[in-house]
Parts: sequence; structure tokens; C-alpha cells
Amino acid sequence: MEIINRELIDFKERKFPEEICFRPIGIIHTPFKKLKGIPIQSSMSDIKGIIEIFHEYQLGLKDLQGFSHLYCLYFFDMVKLPVPLQSKPFLDNEVKGVFAIRTPFRPNPIGLSILEINGIKENKIEVNNVDILDETPILDIKPYASQFDNFKTTKIGWLKGKIKKKIS
Amino acid sequence: MEIINRELIDFKERKFPEEICFRPIGIIHTPFKKLKGIPIQSSMSDIKGIIEIFHEYQLGLKDLQGFSHLYCLYFFDMVKLPVPLQSKPFLDNEVKGVFAIRTPFRPNPIGLSILEINGIKENKIEVNNVDILDETPILDIKPYASQFDNFKTTKIGWLKGKIKKKIS
Repeated sequence: MEIINRELIDFKERKFPEEICFRPIGIIHTPFKKLKGIPIQSSMSDIKGIIEIFHEYQLGLKDLQGFSHLYCLYFFDMVKLPVPLQSKPFLDNEVKGVFAIRTPFRPNPIGLSILEINGIKENKIEVNNVDILDETPILDIKPYASQFDNFKTTKIGWLKGKIKKKIS
Repeated sequence: MEIINRELIDFKERKFPEEICFRPIGIIHTPFKKLKGIPIQSSMSDIKGIIEIFHEYQLGLKDLQGFSHLYCLYFFDMVKLPVPLQSKPFLDNEVKGVFAIRTPFRPNPIGLSILEINGIKENKIEVNNVDILDETPILDIKPYASQFDNFKTTKIGWLKGKIKKKIS
């Protein structure tokens, strides 16, 4: 059934949520079968993978093939909570705040990768530059566009001078 | 209590989740008190806001002040599920697949904005170019770096020729 209306809750019913629950919309298939050896950023990877969108969401893929890149949001399902609020990132030896690093060990273990779209067949998106563990649950796919998403950073904090290709 | 260890689940215990639940790490305060009149992309906004990180997560902000921009992941808490899998975006009159547009009306209503950091005081991050409704629950903050996050798109699908400053 195609839902026609986009509905909002009533402002009077708005209440700050204690818990927010999602259901995966798909799963990603990649050559990374274990946690060691995964590129630490998608910009450092040339590995291919396949995002399989579950059939119930397949209609949502219409028009995505026109884009060269997508944002993939996913769940780091191997992470046990709670996590430390400060820890060492891959690219430095000093402890940093979790919101200043990209570690999977986050209070809400949500991953974000920008992937190149190689093609879409039915419910499967072939992607390039994958940095994601095989069989990771997918939460959302959004189109990526340089015009919206390329901000020029003037400061990159502790990362300055430390960026290099690395695997986990 | 500061958690020291980063723990993983055992691969043998790994099971694809039916539902994934998170708890907000904070709330954003913005001048947008209703859904009409919000810039449709952060790159089109020059409005300021404050991300208030809850005190229990404040230690995670260490080192973030060194960055000029952050990724803010948040929950579109006004959206009623289920949503249509295809609908009209703000910038076009034809129906598109939900994963090819940035609408808040998504199967998992997760928002993503790139915001400029103006300053951090205790648990409050002052940000610029806000496109988010006041009192929206925050899920995650990640550092943004041009070196990782600026991909050059070769195709932007239906968006081509349609990008213009617009509010909701």
C-alpha cells in the first residue's frame, strides 16, 4: 500500500522523547567480514559493496540513480553500550571527546559514509569506496550533492596534519 | 562514571536487529518555532542556534572547539509514520523516491545538517546556518572535515538546475 499523505503530529502533542526507535530499511554486503582491516573513512576506500534495500522500501529508490553519490546512515551493531565519552581515535594517540572523533563507539552508534553510486538494479545499490562491515543494518539513504554538502572548513582541530590513509 | 573500555559484541551473538533504539544526547534551540519558514538546507541558512548537550554526555565535547564545522544528526520528531515512499520535494513538482530527496518524511526520520561552530561553552555549542525546528532531539554530533567529506559529485539527478534558496 502506498501511503499518500504526509502527516505531522499535533504541536500540542509534542513531547521530548526518552527513546527513539527505528527499523532497518536494508543491509549492506561488503568484503569486510571482520572489524580489522576496514578503511577508516570512505574517502580512503576503493572497495565495492552492495546496499540491499528491503522490498517494502524499494519504491523509495526511484530517481536515486541520477545521483553520483549518496549518504549512507547505518547502525554500528557490534558496539556494546555504554561507551567511553573520551577515547583515542585511529589517527592520534591522545584521548579526545567522542563528538570530536569518528569512532563507532558513540553513545548512539550511528555511522555516516559518503558512497559513490555505481548502479542500481531493482532493490540493490552498487556502491564504491565502502568502509562498512559486512551485514551492517542500514538506517537511511539520502542523496549527496556538492552544492549542498561541500563546506569549506577553516579549522579541523586535532586532525590537522594527521590525515593519512589507514585501516582499522 | 567514565567508562574505560570499548567493548564489542561477540560475532557469534551477532543478530540482525528488528528494531534499533537510541536516546537523545541533547536538544537544539533555534528561532524556528513552527514548521513553516525554515531554510530547506543548512547551506542556505545564516540563522544561529544552540545545541545543548545533556550533562551526562558533556565530556564527549572535548576537542570539538578545534573544528569549524560539525555534522548534526537529529530526529524529525514531528513526522508521523508511516510515510509515503515517493513524494514531491521542495525544489520540484514531480514525485521522487524518498531516498532521492531530503524530505523529513522518511521511513526513519533522521535529519542531517552540516553546521558551523561559533563557539562552545560548557555543554552548549553555538552554531550557525541552522535549518532545524526548535527543540528537536539530537542523536549524534560528528566533526566535519573538508578532507573527508567534500566529494565532487558528477551527477545530481533531478536537482540539476533546480537548486535555489528556499524555505519550508
